[in-house]
Amino acid sequence: MSAPTEVTVESPADFHVHLRQGELSEVVTPQVRKGGFDLAYVMPNLRPPITKTEQAIAYRERLKAIDSSVDYLMTLYLSPDLTPEEVRKAKEAGIAGVKSYPRGVTTNSDGGIESYEIYYPVFEEMQKCDLVLNLHGEVPSDAASNTCVLNAENAFLPHLKKLHDTFPKLRIVLEHATTRAAVDMVKSLGDTVACTITAHHLAMTVDDWAGQSWNYCKPVAKYPSDRQALQEVVRQGHPKFFLGSDSAPHPASTKSVATPSQPCAAGVYTSPILLPFVAHTLESFGALDRLQGFVSDHGRAFYRRPAGANARRIVLRRVQGIRVEDTWPLGGDRVVPFWAGKEIGWEIGDVSLLKR
Amino acid sequence: MSAPTEVTVESPADFHVHLRQGELSEVVTPQVRKGGFDLAYVMPNLRPPITKTEQAIAYRERLKAIDSSVDYLMTLYLSPDLTPEEVRKAKEAGIAGVKSYPRGVTTNSDGGIESYEIYYPVFEEMQKCDLVLNLHGEVPSDAASNTCVLNAENAFLPHLKKLHDTFPKLRIVLEHATTRAAVDMVKSLGDTVACTITAHHLAMTVDDWAGQSWNYCKPVAKYPSDRQALQEVVRQGHPKFFLGSDSAPHPASTKSVATPSQPCAAGVYTSPILLPFVAHTLESFGALDRLQGFVSDHGRAFYRRPAGANARRIVLRRVQGIRVEDTWPLGGDRVVPFWAGKEIGWEIGDVSLLKR
Repeated sequence: MSAPTEVTVESPADFHVHLRQGELSEVVTPQVRKGGFDLAYVMPNLRPPITKTEQAIAYRERLKAIDSSVDYLMTLYLSPDLTPEEVRKAKEAGIAGVKSYPRGVTTNSDGGIESYEIYYPVFEEMQKCDLVLNLHGEVPSDAASNTCVLNAENAFLPHLKKLHDTFPKLRIVLEHATTRAAVDMVKSLGDTVACTITAHHLAMTVDDWAGQSWNYCKPVAKYPSDRQALQEVVRQGHPKFFLGSDSAPHPASTKSVATPSQPCAAGVYTSPILLPFVAHTLESFGALDRLQGFVSDHGRAFYRRPAGANARRIVLRRVQGIRVEDTWPLGGDRVVPFWAGKEIGWEIGDVSLLKR
Repeated sequence: MSAPTEVTVESPADFHVHLRQGELSEVVTPQVRKGGFDLAYVMPNLRPPITKTEQAIAYRERLKAIDSSVDYLMTLYLSPDLTPEEVRKAKEAGIAGVKSYPRGVTTNSDGGIESYEIYYPVFEEMQKCDLVLNLHGEVPSDAASNTCVLNAENAFLPHLKKLHDTFPKLRIVLEHATTRAAVDMVKSLGDTVACTITAHHLAMTVDDWAGQSWNYCKPVAKYPSDRQALQEVVRQGHPKFFLGSDSAPHPASTKSVATPSQPCAAGVYTSPILLPFVAHTLESFGALDRLQGFVSDHGRAFYRRPAGANARRIVLRRVQGIRVEDTWPLGGDRVVPFWAGKEIGWEIGDVSLLKR
């Protein structure tokens, strides 16, 4: 069997994207479609965070004004502002989920949660309304309990299990899993628990971000054996695992320069290259035939979001190797994508409307 | 018992220092004494590496010309250039040890070793001559065997044990240990095996260098439980464990800026603040009373280097907290020490000659 020269993907959906606000949002929002995607599941960690339905609706309007061709699924930021009443309101307004951040673990997460029990009435209502709970699955670092960025996800997994046991009908997504333990845990739980995997965690290990801030994100990429577990579950075509890019743009200056008092920003920006890069990465570990399931079918099935009227059929063409080199101006700064300077073996070719 | 306001240290010795070459060497060599130290055990990873006795002697002369007040113990870089004959020559010329680098693991280590067996004749001669073998104890990363920067030291430990078993009288130092497993291994071996610990590995974990290139060095700082093991063995006053700062200066631009194609330099620069910083750090985990042993007695005993004619008695004074803020010009660049912007609770006070 010779390697294919074309691959067709229908209505790809990115179930975890940061589209930011202000000028940065103007720059990055159009890249969702440029990267091949029809649907963006939008994270609420703005300043201030999106904690109310009205804010989410207004945010969606701003995104639509920038690029009306993408389906934006909106989320609220889990905080004490979120009441069962607000959950009902959010559901009626078409909000898709609620995102939980552990306090202080990633960008704009200072208002994140410390304990879940106070949110049980909210989760109860979410379960009733069928709103999805999206979990950033890390606990804060704590030297006394030997918790650091390397085992913060593993330490979170019992919380995931407990939440699922307590709210078995609540649909939960463990976001951006990075470890074998997380994959095993999600597999072991019921069908209401799914898991996103980023493109970059399929490609990197700790060695890639050691001293290389452009590859630094939270959760951090971990051991080769962890990456292997992520690759294996994608190669299996397991329906509970699907793409959420966690594409997280930052101004280049904050990615490239650390001062002794200011570390680099966490997050890598994959939107502009996403579909070709995912194809490239899946092919690298023998999973190119799982592309459609990973970037579209599994996620759309879990979220019950079949392709809409604007959905597209995208032909990816094999190429000799195209160097990632586009950057985008941002005030006096710029935005630089992940994988800059490296080559990708696929590009987006013909795009047509899916006629169903 | 109230906390002391003064601590006296006699003839501190740093058994692992990078003094570089060229302009950088001019800048950093005088900082050894400024940081409180009388003795510098000098690493040979220059460009080209110091593989011959003549080179080491010439290098020592250059260092003496910069600052004649420090006792420089010189090392050779283990490579196929090193013959048993050269070992004898080195011993006669007063060279103290031979440093082994694994290939490609740290700064200027492209010529490092891949397997030890070809060096057995050299080790045999070193054992006869009583030349010390200094080991950078990491194996190269290899995804297929799940080896990465996090477990590269653990994977090296069987090599250490095998070397010791094969050459039981060869004095070996495992350099800059970072893990509990390394501490346990060194403890388990005979008295000819000792271990250096850096100041910064007593202070940091992986969380400190994640996204913060100024704290990035090889071996990388690891789990809180690993740091705890290093602290415990220092607090025990274990005589096989002593300070080797691995002070490793780089131009600030290479420490602070990563481009997508160029990671930041590995290494932190502690020489200018070393003795006060070690006191500060040891006190933070209740080991201030072990300062003399850790920074002088244990290492001098292992290396059989009692304090010389120039040896000093240094009084450290407790201070309210002095901010590390000195930097040094280097061409159009500069050199910035570790801990810049943070405070240290000790400073160097009276210094007098040790009259024995």
